[in-house]
Amino acid sequence: MKIDLKKSVSPFSKKEKYSRFIWNIVWYLVSPLPRPASSLRIKLLRLFGSKIGKDCLIEPGVKIWIPWNLILDDFVAIGRQTEIYNYGVVSIGSMTVISQYSYLCTGSHNYSHPYMPLIWDNIVIGSECWIAAGTWIMPGVKIGDGAVIGARSLVTRDIPDWSVCAGHPCKPLKERKILNIDIID
Amino acid sequence: MKIDLKKSVSPFSKKEKYSRFIWNIVWYLVSPLPRPASSLRIKLLRLFGSKIGKDCLIEPGVKIWIPWNLILDDFVAIGRQTEIYNYGVVSIGSMTVISQYSYLCTGSHNYSHPYMPLIWDNIVIGSECWIAAGTWIMPGVKIGDGAVIGARSLVTRDIPDWSVCAGHPCKPLKERKILNIDIID
Amino acid sequence: MKIDLKKSVSPFSKKEKYSRFIWNIVWYLVSPLPRPASSLRIKLLRLFGSKIGKDCLIEPGVKIWIPWNLILDDFVAIGRQTEIYNYGVVSIGSMTVISQYSYLCTGSHNYSHPYMPLIWDNIVIGSECWIAAGTWIMPGVKIGDGAVIGARSLVTRDIPDWSVCAGHPCKPLKERKILNIDIID
Repeated sequence: MKIDLKKSVSPFSKKEKYSRFIWNIVWYLVSPLPRPASSLRIKLLRLFGSKIGKDCLIEPGVKIWIPWNLILDDFVAIGRQTEIYNYGVVSIGSMTVISQYSYLCTGSHNYSHPYMPLIWDNIVIGSECWIAAGTWIMPGVKIGDGAVIGARSLVTRDIPDWSVCAGHPCKPLKERKILNIDIID
Repeated sequence: MKIDLKKSVSPFSKKEKYSRFIWNIVWYLVSPLPRPASSLRIKLLRLFGSKIGKDCLIEPGVKIWIPWNLILDDFVAIGRQTEIYNYGVVSIGSMTVISQYSYLCTGSHNYSHPYMPLIWDNIVIGSECWIAAGTWIMPGVKIGDGAVIGARSLVTRDIPDWSVCAGHPCKPLKERKILNIDIID
Repeated sequence: MKIDLKKSVSPFSKKEKYSRFIWNIVWYLVSPLPRPASSLRIKLLRLFGSKIGKDCLIEPGVKIWIPWNLILDDFVAIGRQTEIYNYGVVSIGSMTVISQYSYLCTGSHNYSHPYMPLIWDNIVIGSECWIAAGTWIMPGVKIGDGAVIGARSLVTRDIPDWSVCAGHPCKPLKERKILNIDIID
């Protein structure tokens, strides 16, 4: 045997484990509440260390692993059933929408090490992005301002600003252009 | 800032919002009930405006957003945890099976518009199809009669009749041929 | 019409159906219990016919269809919300980790037959593997010892020993090498 999981140890302190235990109970109770409970969810996230701007929306069923590793700017919307698996810090810029069933995955294992230790890397999502439903974002990824990620993409690499991207793995398809509002209205 | 979500407005009337509120409560109660409750689920869907043929099956955990935008022909089976996100109309032909964890997604956002308005397009699935588990179907897609879609495909374009298709994005792989029953039995 | 689902019959005996009915009730009660309930879950799985080695971990929310079709060697970990859809036998070697939201799918339909009968094929996962989160494994697949499968892959074919693989469909990317522990510590 080359791998020995018996020697794998938790990287978390007792205090962190205790805080996460309390957090899990709190979130278990408020996460399923309907949409108008978003402001209650945000209050509790702030109480446990999240930095959250004004006018954000956290829909029902969102799962957040470590509240003190979450930074949201103003007017961020997180769709239902999205999971923020944030051993690393997840930060999201203003006016960004994360649609339902997305998965922001900061955690991984060092599979070259015989004890398979837990490792993680931060995820940074810019402002004015749209992460469409069912998207999966890998550890360490940086998504530029204004990027659009197509539904159910797997984002393994950094994404350029104001690009429309999709696929498994996710690749830039075209530039995102915003219509002049005078023309549309 | 190019994007201004503050100016995004709901496209739904008060009456639609009220009907959907009542529907959500009703469905919350009957959706998790076990398989034999399928006939009760179908009765309630019809009461809220779905057009459903005879001998259909709606398994536990199926989520349907707008019941009056659902049309099922005879003998359609919808597998557990499938989500029908039907701002647009979803219509499914007879003898078609949708397997578990599929996602029929009619909704999107116009990401070229600074207010990111909700948009949608209908999904049409033919008769005698099999949509295998975990498949995701995009807005506006038309799936031909007799098509087979492999597990966890992402269907972004129309699918020809009697074809076997799979992938991310989903592409035709071969023709679907049905064995002569005299030979098999 | 070429397809006639009315003539599709269940391949399961009354005894199997009854055992699965009881199993579903039992598992419905113990599956959502928190992590320390893993040992209770393992006791119940063994009672219903699973063969499970020592020091295994079954996280909350794991779904197992047919307990008597599950074989785990020592020190196997199954992450939360993983579904083991085991009409066929699923066997997993020692020191292997299956991360959250994976789907081990042994079931399919013979779509060339007009009655679309349920068919299945076994899944064999070797020792010392890591199946990362959100992976989907198709019927009949054999994953070699020490293989790493990247997050959200779709595994449609056999995977060689000690390879790192990913994608939709999943393909080998490189050899997996394990660091000499003297160097790291």
